[in-house]
Amino acid sequence: MNITLAQLNYHIGDFEKNYTKIADAVQEAKQQGSDLVIFGELATTGYPPRDFLEFEDFIQRSNDTLERIKALSDGIGIVIGAPTINPKVEGKDLFNSAYFFYNKETLRVHHKTLLPTYDIFDEYRYFEPNYNFELVAFKGKKIALTVCEDIWNIGNENPLYPICPMDEMMPLGPDFIINVSASPFSVMHAESRKAIVKENLNRYKIPMFYVNHVGAQTEIIFDGGSIVGGPFGNIYKELPFFEESITTVNLESVLNNNQEDAQVDDNIKEMHDAIVLGIKDYFGKLGFTKAVLGLSGGIDSAVTAALAARALGGENVRGILMPSQYSSDHSVNDARQLAENLNMPYDIIPIEPMYKAFETALSPAFEGTEFNVTEENIQARIRGVLNMAISNKFGNILLNTSNKSEMAVGYGTLYGDLCGGLSVIADVYKTDVYLLAEYINKDGEVIPKNTITKPPSAELRPNQKDSDSLPDYAVLDEILYLYIEEKQGPKAIIARGHDPALVKRILRLVNINEFKRYQTAPALRVSSKSFGMGRRLPIVAKYLS
Amino acid sequence: MNITLAQLNYHIGDFEKNYTKIADAVQEAKQQGSDLVIFGELATTGYPPRDFLEFEDFIQRSNDTLERIKALSDGIGIVIGAPTINPKVEGKDLFNSAYFFYNKETLRVHHKTLLPTYDIFDEYRYFEPNYNFELVAFKGKKIALTVCEDIWNIGNENPLYPICPMDEMMPLGPDFIINVSASPFSVMHAESRKAIVKENLNRYKIPMFYVNHVGAQTEIIFDGGSIVGGPFGNIYKELPFFEESITTVNLESVLNNNQEDAQVDDNIKEMHDAIVLGIKDYFGKLGFTKAVLGLSGGIDSAVTAALAARALGGENVRGILMPSQYSSDHSVNDARQLAENLNMPYDIIPIEPMYKAFETALSPAFEGTEFNVTEENIQARIRGVLNMAISNKFGNILLNTSNKSEMAVGYGTLYGDLCGGLSVIADVYKTDVYLLAEYINKDGEVIPKNTITKPPSAELRPNQKDSDSLPDYAVLDEILYLYIEEKQGPKAIIARGHDPALVKRILRLVNINEFKRYQTAPALRVSSKSFGMGRRLPIVAKYLS
Repeated sequence: MNITLAQLNYHIGDFEKNYTKIADAVQEAKQQGSDLVIFGELATTGYPPRDFLEFEDFIQRSNDTLERIKALSDGIGIVIGAPTINPKVEGKDLFNSAYFFYNKETLRVHHKTLLPTYDIFDEYRYFEPNYNFELVAFKGKKIALTVCEDIWNIGNENPLYPICPMDEMMPLGPDFIINVSASPFSVMHAESRKAIVKENLNRYKIPMFYVNHVGAQTEIIFDGGSIVGGPFGNIYKELPFFEESITTVNLESVLNNNQEDAQVDDNIKEMHDAIVLGIKDYFGKLGFTKAVLGLSGGIDSAVTAALAARALGGENVRGILMPSQYSSDHSVNDARQLAENLNMPYDIIPIEPMYKAFETALSPAFEGTEFNVTEENIQARIRGVLNMAISNKFGNILLNTSNKSEMAVGYGTLYGDLCGGLSVIADVYKTDVYLLAEYINKDGEVIPKNTITKPPSAELRPNQKDSDSLPDYAVLDEILYLYIEEKQGPKAIIARGHDPALVKRILRLVNINEFKRYQTAPALRVSSKSFGMGRRLPIVAKYLS
Repeated sequence: MNITLAQLNYHIGDFEKNYTKIADAVQEAKQQGSDLVIFGELATTGYPPRDFLEFEDFIQRSNDTLERIKALSDGIGIVIGAPTINPKVEGKDLFNSAYFFYNKETLRVHHKTLLPTYDIFDEYRYFEPNYNFELVAFKGKKIALTVCEDIWNIGNENPLYPICPMDEMMPLGPDFIINVSASPFSVMHAESRKAIVKENLNRYKIPMFYVNHVGAQTEIIFDGGSIVGGPFGNIYKELPFFEESITTVNLESVLNNNQEDAQVDDNIKEMHDAIVLGIKDYFGKLGFTKAVLGLSGGIDSAVTAALAARALGGENVRGILMPSQYSSDHSVNDARQLAENLNMPYDIIPIEPMYKAFETALSPAFEGTEFNVTEENIQARIRGVLNMAISNKFGNILLNTSNKSEMAVGYGTLYGDLCGGLSVIADVYKTDVYLLAEYINKDGEVIPKNTITKPPSAELRPNQKDSDSLPDYAVLDEILYLYIEEKQGPKAIIARGHDPALVKRILRLVNINEFKRYQTAPALRVSSKSFGMGRRLPIVAKYLS
């Protein structure tokens, strides 16, 4: 039996486009001599469709698409994820299902049992869990269908669910497992995925065909990396990262060959490739081709520009240099050098005339007050207005260049440097921004050396440095990681050797700045805990603040 | 037996303040001769604590608070909601529980069975459901404990859950039901709440003591309205809306007296009172006292200002009048009149000098282009910079004045008029904004008549009117309501008699403007489907767009 893994890049809600992609893949699988082609989770709709699932009209369109896909199953088995209307009046209105079509018949509709409802996942918001475990008989084989999370509840010290679907199905004697997935990227996740597939292989000793999505959906990036797992606990084949792939394997070969063919994981490379794909799909799926961003001469805007240039082409990324009276000469020079290295068009628009106009207009109201953060913010906001003017006039999407360390402590101006349609590196800590810069420069200087070596500064008042108000980024990032990713409390963080006053101050800054993060663009998610839909905190609260 | 309902306004994460409030209420209940005092759901933490629940340190603080509350139960029963650590390794790490303390002992910890995971609710994100049903024996009575949603799964055509906790407990013969709740306000919700309590009373024929929260938590507003339900299906007593109340009733009187003492619901009054409380708590709990907002002379900013003045005092609400070359004289006059009616301080800052400075700075980049929405946006954003400058310099929180109709179709400028820390009326359709204005004016003119009667305009180009680009608000709001609140698809909306091309255009506008709503302030929630945490849609999607 030949089995095809179809790792595709779907567009949420674009049923026609998704159908065409799926139909083309079925055709390709047939040409590859396949008996069975497997797609990802909720493939008709794209993942995650979020509250569109609550619209009857949306579900109807998915069902119509599913009927058309079923009609393609002449002579080939098709396994595909899609929502199903719950026929019972009690419980949620939908199931998250894997459909098995063959010869225009539905051999089985198997619903997802374990509904991830944590971090970016909201599945119990929409779906009723399954408690019905049966296998599908196909061409003399018995197949266990599972949907994504269904295979993740084993090998954990603290399992999230009291049930393990494959434990229920093993007594029925399946020959192999199919898993239709939508399992998003974060650094280390590809390794976790291979580890969990191996846990399953070692426990159940039968092959697994695991098919993931690829492509970005707003902030969530699917890396692909679909897997054929062998009965020896081996990764028989791993599909490529960050690109579509339609790959056929022979079941008998999988059963008899203990080859190990997993890709080597490189965290910074994967982060880089994920962000490039994230930008590409954000623009492509929205129907835009051009970006704009402010270039300060600093490392954050330089790394953002380089990533955007790789996604869109340098000629489609417009840089705006907006020096103020506090900008150093090297800032403009470094920014200009970057633009030239990347073949980016750029404009230089000094902000002083606007700043003077605001100063004059506000002087009656501000009489008797001193220069403070207000005036710093006015400069940042003038830049925001200029960036948005270019964006509006020419149809370029503005890229936000803030990094995760800044976003965490609120070191940024709302409606100023925090403007933008997409936050490119807002899930990358400053220390990792330097690693990305190094990676980008690995084959020659793209980001000017001076941009990398000079001390970070917002340049909003004379001789300002980030280190005036923040600790060294290595220390800051470690405290932030312990609090944000690991959810450790102040006592535990202090016990790791950090200064108690500093820990208290940093945690307080993180919490009181929730209001800023609430109003910033979606951030491409590359960590296990990104700001945005996966981290939900009240703005009005008094905890560590 | 005397039973006290303690309807309190908690502060999320402020364990010390919540403890003090609870301890004072226990003391007050004792003075009222009570045998048993009942608090709301997750009262130690405030509701909703959201992802703070994932922090071990946060749960530890709740547990410490709970121990202190237990110590207050000498001679009085205390029923209170708090999270519990799940002792089992399988499943979620917490339960959402009702604790029953008496004489410093724990008589029972009863976990919530039905975990709302829809709209603004995310409970299955944190909590494992309960399947253990027992009663508490207290002073010769058998009591059924329930937590909020546990009583809501009856009387629905489409029940969300396959189980009904009170059906499980009735065979054990309870004398009455306690429900610890955190059930937020929306227009009509107080009526639904009374209806569901009556469903329970009619089905189980025993009294119910239902205790709600009061007060706002960022966008979510709890209206109180706690209920004593009688065995005759009667609302024996309903506690006041939008204020704290510690009220004691006698159980025997409830059992023997079929009085009906429910408040009459008035939707516009409740919406008004909810928003005023929402503003008050947003400022009070964040430790701010002063607001600022742009006054355009239009109805949205006028209604926002009037509501803010009622919450904070007119002298604490600063109006900024920012006329442009396109502003009509009456705009400034109407705004000035409003400020005077409300006793608000105000500034007049014409925006033309800043506009000219931007025009000049952008002229090389904009060479050969025509005046379009870009230049309109620049004006709106200059106003945003000015508002934020006043906010930053003087510590006034900027109020966003956009209404729900505008937010829905994206009729507003990101980083311009969409700036602000709190959106006051972003969950109020334009047609309801007029009703709020009438209500505000019911005892005399607060909002100038001309503000109410003139045609709405953004005044960003010569002779602009809202009706140039939008249909009549009565038609627009009906289409929006059918799509947003009722989740009807285009076919169903057109079937209601609306123009197909208009429906298509409006639904498309709603969907493509998700990116703007993503970046705007939290909106005080007064409807059953508000923009923000209760409505979750992808930005990059292609559905009806």
